[in-house]
Amino acid sequence: MPELRKDPVLGRWIIIAKERGKRPTDFIIEKSESKGGFCPLCPGNEKTTPAEVLRYSSTSHPPNTPGWDLRVVPNKYPALVIEGDLDKEGDGLYDKMNGIGAHEVIIETPNHNESFVQLPPERMINVFLSYRERLVDLSRDHRFKYVMVFKNYGRGAGASLEHSHSQLVAMPILPRMIVSELAGSLSYYRYKERCVFCDIIRQETKQEIRVVCQNDHFLCITPYAPRSPFEMWILPKYHSSSYIEQDTRSFQALTAIFTESMLRLDNCIPNVPYNFVLHTSPLRSEPLEHYHWHFEIMPKLTKIAGFEWGTGFYINPTPPEEAAKYLRKLDY
Amino acid sequence: MPELRKDPVLGRWIIIAKERGKRPTDFIIEKSESKGGFCPLCPGNEKTTPAEVLRYSSTSHPPNTPGWDLRVVPNKYPALVIEGDLDKEGDGLYDKMNGIGAHEVIIETPNHNESFVQLPPERMINVFLSYRERLVDLSRDHRFKYVMVFKNYGRGAGASLEHSHSQLVAMPILPRMIVSELAGSLSYYRYKERCVFCDIIRQETKQEIRVVCQNDHFLCITPYAPRSPFEMWILPKYHSSSYIEQDTRSFQALTAIFTESMLRLDNCIPNVPYNFVLHTSPLRSEPLEHYHWHFEIMPKLTKIAGFEWGTGFYINPTPPEEAAKYLRKLDY
Repeated sequence: MPELRKDPVLGRWIIIAKERGKRPTDFIIEKSESKGGFCPLCPGNEKTTPAEVLRYSSTSHPPNTPGWDLRVVPNKYPALVIEGDLDKEGDGLYDKMNGIGAHEVIIETPNHNESFVQLPPERMINVFLSYRERLVDLSRDHRFKYVMVFKNYGRGAGASLEHSHSQLVAMPILPRMIVSELAGSLSYYRYKERCVFCDIIRQETKQEIRVVCQNDHFLCITPYAPRSPFEMWILPKYHSSSYIEQDTRSFQALTAIFTESMLRLDNCIPNVPYNFVLHTSPLRSEPLEHYHWHFEIMPKLTKIAGFEWGTGFYINPTPPEEAAKYLRKLDY
Repeated sequence: MPELRKDPVLGRWIIIAKERGKRPTDFIIEKSESKGGFCPLCPGNEKTTPAEVLRYSSTSHPPNTPGWDLRVVPNKYPALVIEGDLDKEGDGLYDKMNGIGAHEVIIETPNHNESFVQLPPERMINVFLSYRERLVDLSRDHRFKYVMVFKNYGRGAGASLEHSHSQLVAMPILPRMIVSELAGSLSYYRYKERCVFCDIIRQETKQEIRVVCQNDHFLCITPYAPRSPFEMWILPKYHSSSYIEQDTRSFQALTAIFTESMLRLDNCIPNVPYNFVLHTSPLRSEPLEHYHWHFEIMPKLTKIAGFEWGTGFYINPTPPEEAAKYLRKLDY
């Protein structure tokens, strides 16, 4: 079983996933791994993945056979496992916990060569709807406190499979990212009695210099203090702390702005590897006045991401105002 | 002039270094950049770097000419600049600051093909002595609060030059990494009245399972909750909050343990890209009872470092006890 371990100085939790590759030679082999060949996410290969937990389909085929538009399956090499009890334990001054959780793969399209940015709206909206459906379902399991939904695109961003997919990890702790955001936004709220993200949206729509694009429901900006060149945030314009609160029209608008933003990014830096992460309130949390759900999209531009991820100290060579200018010009 | 910007939610500072590459096309070009050719860090090319601020030499050549063993020069493309005033300014809800600071390159050897792990002890000790000398010198400039000393080795870890070098950035703010460490260790100290790092050292030397190697002065361990496979920490065994407090014997011992640790790592995963970062107390700080200086060495194993750097949520496939076992076997 995987293990969750806490850094005694920083309080940061780490997943030790022993079941994955671990010996020094594994890292050497991974580098020379070749692309192409068999794809476990393609239609016809349903039996090579664990049984699906969600399936969108316009035809009536049985589960785990072809004919689907979108599938969600448990990760074959999960970082956390679903069965077991949440034992917490000390080890001298250290703290650890059983690695209980869920790790799922959202297979976004049956077409192997259709990348996320190429998904037609009817497929893209399925992706966003499936995130909500899984969040709602997993929130019923009271062992879990948070579900992190994310996508790695391109090997430079950590993707090991070519076929378009995103992932989610349901975990028994709050990740550091959300702990810090909740604390930071609460401290702003206590001082100003306003949501800091709502204030950001107000200032950005007024100044316009960091706006990439927008529609009635959503705003896409390059954030004021971006860690990475061409980093983008997509925020709902109306205050909402939880992703699962959205209605159908909002999902349509999210599909539209996400497609446009990713196309603009791809136009600027063709085929750039990226990660995106959904930032939303903890599972079963009351609506929060101080928190505002959003997506953060981080292009992975190798030379930049040197030691920054280990230190929290970022050097960004592209002012977000410049990045937004490039991103706004579709035919740059 | 570069700009320091603060994220309004997280309080994280970012350097916007406009002077560096910034257009979308710059990122595309960087990828295809070829290795080899002219090296600005090699002897004979001293005039192509800014004038040296420190030089170790066993012969008496004039500054900025060959004959040196180690040189420290300002970075030609600095993330922060030395001239100017520390203006702080608001921009609506955002905060920014002039990008005042120093960004220097420590050229560790005149030999282009001698990598850090191959440095003979008399060169390696120069590197560690030069860190101290620059820390002491830069602490006289009261605009600076912290000096971050680090090394990127290998393109995968962000190094843009092959010739062995490390870097330092003197900055007018405390980086998030050190703020969190100071806060975390202080909170432990308030509760236990002991330094958390001293407690870690006690437990690790007793348990031995995560010890890579040690000598009279230093301990090298794989930390209990490592972000990266084969992450290593090198800590002085005696309590000390500041790197600059070390005496000569301690520098010899540091040289010995660093060489051994890096050789062991290189033996496990030949030529692995890595970053190391010196964690030490802020400039001009009193000796701190709760803080303990140390080095953190992070191998950069691509498939792992996916979206983790953006979220603070790490999945590590190699338990540190396993890593330590491999690292201890020199002839594995």
